[in-house]
Amino acid sequence: MVKTKSPNAKDELEQLARRIKEGDRRAVGRAISLIEDEVPAAETLLDVLFPLMGKAYRIGITGPPGAGKSTLTAALTRSFRRQGKKVGIIAVDPTSPFTGGAVLGDRVRMAEFNTDPGVFIRSMASRGSMGGLARKAEEAAEILAAAGADIIIFETVGVGQTELEIADTADTTLVVLVPESGDSIQAMKAGLMEIADVFVVNKADREGADRVQLDLAMMLQLRDGTKQDWTPPIVQTVANQNKGIDALLEKIEAHHQFLEQRGKLEQRRRRRLQRKTREIVAQKLAEAFWTPEREAALAEALQRIDEEHVSPYGLAQRLLEKKKKA
Amino acid sequence: MVKTKSPNAKDELEQLARRIKEGDRRAVGRAISLIEDEVPAAETLLDVLFPLMGKAYRIGITGPPGAGKSTLTAALTRSFRRQGKKVGIIAVDPTSPFTGGAVLGDRVRMAEFNTDPGVFIRSMASRGSMGGLARKAEEAAEILAAAGADIIIFETVGVGQTELEIADTADTTLVVLVPESGDSIQAMKAGLMEIADVFVVNKADREGADRVQLDLAMMLQLRDGTKQDWTPPIVQTVANQNKGIDALLEKIEAHHQFLEQRGKLEQRRRRRLQRKTREIVAQKLAEAFWTPEREAALAEALQRIDEEHVSPYGLAQRLLEKKKKA
Repeated sequence: MVKTKSPNAKDELEQLARRIKEGDRRAVGRAISLIEDEVPAAETLLDVLFPLMGKAYRIGITGPPGAGKSTLTAALTRSFRRQGKKVGIIAVDPTSPFTGGAVLGDRVRMAEFNTDPGVFIRSMASRGSMGGLARKAEEAAEILAAAGADIIIFETVGVGQTELEIADTADTTLVVLVPESGDSIQAMKAGLMEIADVFVVNKADREGADRVQLDLAMMLQLRDGTKQDWTPPIVQTVANQNKGIDALLEKIEAHHQFLEQRGKLEQRRRRRLQRKTREIVAQKLAEAFWTPEREAALAEALQRIDEEHVSPYGLAQRLLEKKKKA
Repeated sequence: MVKTKSPNAKDELEQLARRIKEGDRRAVGRAISLIEDEVPAAETLLDVLFPLMGKAYRIGITGPPGAGKSTLTAALTRSFRRQGKKVGIIAVDPTSPFTGGAVLGDRVRMAEFNTDPGVFIRSMASRGSMGGLARKAEEAAEILAAAGADIIIFETVGVGQTELEIADTADTTLVVLVPESGDSIQAMKAGLMEIADVFVVNKADREGADRVQLDLAMMLQLRDGTKQDWTPPIVQTVANQNKGIDALLEKIEAHHQFLEQRGKLEQRRRRRLQRKTREIVAQKLAEAFWTPEREAALAEALQRIDEEHVSPYGLAQRLLEKKKKA
């Protein structure tokens, strides 16, 4: 990873913000690096750019490894480009130790967009630092939106916690399966149900696509007993042959319309802003609390924890009480 | 989910703690429910029981849906029971909306342990409340350790954020694959590498087991250029026929010895305690901060956010400044 220097000077930040607004790809890349490196200036930048955000439509694409999510992302991107829309793609891989976490094949596949100024692709990964990846992905999306992206695509692997959080961020979430997913559907059922707005059975030219579609349809029927207001459609695609992509786009658009008519887009946006505010507050409180003195007190107490039989609960209490006295 | 009442009286809590120490299964179940429901008394309980914790050995088992993790867990549990060891099993499914998230098949498979007082099984899921599942699973493990478990097995699906966090908690993490995983290995490579202490190729009587083993071995060889001090062994098993389980146990034991000799077990424990203390502090700070007045101020500001063009960063700042003035 190339370390980015923190832009200290205020006018340097303003210049960066201006270049982002102009859609300058290098400026966008730089801003996302600031976010990844958790540089304080990133926050100022997001604050400054805020009025420009929130207008992009966010699509989440998730599914098991090998389901063809990148190929599908590429096919959708091509279609959006033909409609004249600018696309930002954030590939989130919580397990990759490489920034630019996409595997080689994905990069090659995405290379077709390298010369297209209307497409911006960024891979994000979280090595070591647990947590925060969903938040950083969301902030990167805000930068892309400020730079003029009409569509943001989040590509994630699996249905773990990070993926659930990102699905919560997206307006429309596609869950991508393959004909071979049959066995997994039972096991993944609950999680899939929770996050899918549209199901995609990709690689549908292989045997078993209809069975997977049937399994999904049955699950949805069972669920519909509980009166959901949106029933996820199921679309078969062969992304690497561009088959089924138009049908998929129609379903995405239908879901978009549905959200808009019910006022749910605005609802989601406010919920995102609320969560974001809470996260920032939590971070600031922690930063203010963990002074060098308290860090030292924690380190020292951990050395003596066995003799003193103090639990983390007791230890936290002690540190918090010192605060009150101070 | 059965809602648990909060035990308010101090002697009620002491009684619960005493029953947990005696290994009373109902008391253990009650305590874990208190943790899941985030009842304040859970904390007092964990504080009281702390001196008894930390002695159990923690094994994480993760892998894609359908890899046979539950069958493997059952086979390992049987072996540990023959050695006279008590086993606590925590099945973590971040995506299941059911508490007791295991699918029916798993429950039936685990039914053999229902009458064994030396085995305690608990499923945990996180519906809605994002985050915190890894923390709750760890706290549940502490209760099981206090109740006398010698071995704790965490069973998780996939390699998402929650799984990474739980792997961080475990002493030895098994990554379970199947012969069909070949395609996924490339894609999952990085994440697997990061968390696996032992690789298990389960269902190894199917075609492709040797190829998967070879792929893994090659990956490990590439990695060994970077001088790791532990190279994850690869074990083939057929868990439902109890094949390869003894070999797997040997590798787990070898990893345990390795950690102990290098002082890494103690290191890991201190790191867990440190992280835990920080989490508790963060929670207490947030609880203290979000008074009804601030909650109201946040809700009101969100209503006006579009007219005022204030970003979440600005909003958080404003709320935090009110604090200073107060």
